[in-house]
Amino acid sequence: MEKDSKAANVALVLSGCGVYDGSEIHEAVCALLNLKKLGANVEFFAPQMPQKDVVNHLNATLVDSTRNVLEESARIARGNVAPASELDVSKFDAVVFPGGFGAAKNLSSFAFDGADCRVCKDVERIVTTAVGLGKKLAFICIAPVIAAKVIGKGVKLTIGNDKATAAAIESMGAKHLECQPTEFVRDDNFKVYSTPAYMLAADITEVDKGVGAMLADMLA
Amino acid sequence: MEKDSKAANVALVLSGCGVYDGSEIHEAVCALLNLKKLGANVEFFAPQMPQKDVVNHLNATLVDSTRNVLEESARIARGNVAPASELDVSKFDAVVFPGGFGAAKNLSSFAFDGADCRVCKDVERIVTTAVGLGKKLAFICIAPVIAAKVIGKGVKLTIGNDKATAAAIESMGAKHLECQPTEFVRDDNFKVYSTPAYMLAADITEVDKGVGAMLADMLA
Repeated sequence: MEKDSKAANVALVLSGCGVYDGSEIHEAVCALLNLKKLGANVEFFAPQMPQKDVVNHLNATLVDSTRNVLEESARIARGNVAPASELDVSKFDAVVFPGGFGAAKNLSSFAFDGADCRVCKDVERIVTTAVGLGKKLAFICIAPVIAAKVIGKGVKLTIGNDKATAAAIESMGAKHLECQPTEFVRDDNFKVYSTPAYMLAADITEVDKGVGAMLADMLA
Repeated sequence: MEKDSKAANVALVLSGCGVYDGSEIHEAVCALLNLKKLGANVEFFAPQMPQKDVVNHLNATLVDSTRNVLEESARIARGNVAPASELDVSKFDAVVFPGGFGAAKNLSSFAFDGADCRVCKDVERIVTTAVGLGKKLAFICIAPVIAAKVIGKGVKLTIGNDKATAAAIESMGAKHLECQPTEFVRDDNFKVYSTPAYMLAADITEVDKGVGAMLADMLA
């Protein structure tokens, strides 16, 4: 398709393909669907790195195997995904991070290290640059831990109402607000959006509503 | 969530996770989202079998590796997927088959054998039983080749307008009708629905429209 030069340009940053070791698939697809319904041009990115682990999604057990974050993300992106190292934030109006354990295992080490987590270099650069340039950022599900770690400074975020995760977010210097899965939190100072999605959602219709409401507000 | 006893019960049959060797992810998620928006109870199924092949979705090349159709389908289903051998068609109002090469490589051998393809035993039983019991069936993208092979008898189907695939469908004894990706074909005799999705769709919004229109009509 022709790229619409008047439309918003949005980068969607994936972390693999599957809730337990990569991007949560419904969240990533609902983000894409809502962005396209809103008329945005969407480009996919993902870090070129090995996944932290591979999980059998039938029984949530670890598999003795190796997969690549960029290659698995290409399943969601139907092949059209570029290395996160090539994301030129200045060319986009917004960057969106779906959830799934990939955000807490591959994009950051939050699943293992909590508030002491590291954020992968590409993602740290993307978030820091976006804030510096006044671009918009959206974080879904568990992905707001990345914003808490990289931005801190009282940035308002939500992961729903999980007390332990909210406490970790606050200890990284951010402000956690409780939120329903069909709603979202907006930080006007940093232009940062977040919504709980499967941290709280009972099913995919709630994910679609919350993500859709957040992205509509972000692109309004 | 509580199962709604008045709602339609729909089985969604997956074939892996990723357009080139499994279920097309956007089609599967759009089917789920639309079914849930329509108030249906949805249960996932997939054959317990090795994938025919594994494809690197970054460059569409074969990978020397083995993956399991049921385990990879669990990524789309967030773990909640049962073996297709356990699908008791009598307990459902409808069975839906998303597309992706998994429908033509794992559920059937159409990608390799064309009109001479075989359909995997579980899927052949599901389709034959559904027709016998007067249940509804929906096929997305390339999946209608399964209906052509198993049902034949002039069943009306669409895969869009690809001439070679349409000819193969006709040579298996079905009737092919051209169709836009935002529309669908309904065969009232066999209660079989089909929509082209990514056989023709320019983007995910067209997939969502066509799949949504088809499923709304099916559950009306």
